[in-house]
Amino acid sequence: MAEETKKKGLIIVNTGNGKGKTTAALGICIRAVGYDMKVAIVQFIKGSWYYGELDGIKRLAPNVELFAGGKGFVGIIDDNLPREEHEKAARATLAYAEELMLSGKYDILILDELNVAVSIGLLNIKEVLDLLDKKPEKLDIIITGRGAHDDLIDRADLVTEMKEIKHPYQKGILAQKGIDY
Amino acid sequence: MAEETKKKGLIIVNTGNGKGKTTAALGICIRAVGYDMKVAIVQFIKGSWYYGELDGIKRLAPNVELFAGGKGFVGIIDDNLPREEHEKAARATLAYAEELMLSGKYDILILDELNVAVSIGLLNIKEVLDLLDKKPEKLDIIITGRGAHDDLIDRADLVTEMKEIKHPYQKGILAQKGIDY
Repeated sequence: MAEETKKKGLIIVNTGNGKGKTTAALGICIRAVGYDMKVAIVQFIKGSWYYGELDGIKRLAPNVELFAGGKGFVGIIDDNLPREEHEKAARATLAYAEELMLSGKYDILILDELNVAVSIGLLNIKEVLDLLDKKPEKLDIIITGRGAHDDLIDRADLVTEMKEIKHPYQKGILAQKGIDY
Repeated sequence: MAEETKKKGLIIVNTGNGKGKTTAALGICIRAVGYDMKVAIVQFIKGSWYYGELDGIKRLAPNVELFAGGKGFVGIIDDNLPREEHEKAARATLAYAEELMLSGKYDILILDELNVAVSIGLLNIKEVLDLLDKKPEKLDIIITGRGAHDDLIDRADLVTEMKEIKHPYQKGILAQKGIDY
């Protein structure tokens, strides 16, 4: 944890249907590393990141650590896990996030795609709010994913909606390496 | 420039009154670095970045290079430059951005706060569109700043509005190191 004392950590939510929710959280990592802060990123949807992100994050080690949780996307074609397995994995990931949160080792904790885990019903919002109740005062928590629950928005200090105004898929342009993945 | 061939570079705009416009562009740097791409960031408002960002970006060198342009914020209390000086600086920064754009050295060019330089009238939108006309096919350009001009939105491939839903200043919480600056 960085030496500097901070007055109060924030609960930050990046939501909306547009791009930049996880990406802005990654950007905060760059800034935090510049202050020699420690960041833990916990992924609730395993496989939601691409090699570029994973390799790029390594450049910010040891300040930034990534912990992959979850069992991958739910309900897509090659998902042959029973739903209970996904729920169990989401719950285990949340418990692990709590452990990291309480370890005192980090200045910033990023809970990536947690909103999605809640909105598809793998976790209920009460479990998330219970975790936030135990947040150490100075820790910042950033929660990403579309469809943030209203109770989480009520609870958060800073909420930004990333809103899609225009997307290249509309023009038939394919996803671009380095930008989309 | 990375070896990999890409089909078509995009013109990307991050705008809106919320947080995450520049931060998401920084996040794209992490991802791009993971693919060993080269990124140039050109700042149109000098002094708009804090030490944390500047030091963090150094961890991504030599893949990411930062070029500070502009003469600082316009019209604030300690701004005692004549307006023509600001315009001259903005124009010089745009010319320099064009040089970088045409150098063939970069995969991604970030024009940070260019929207602001246009909206306060330091540059006119035609100058910006003229630059975009010369964009090498494979280069991605990311333009940030609130108040993106309609003609730029028309021209862009991907536009995201970062919209403020809730901000801690509303609750009287001060800016936080690592998060806000």
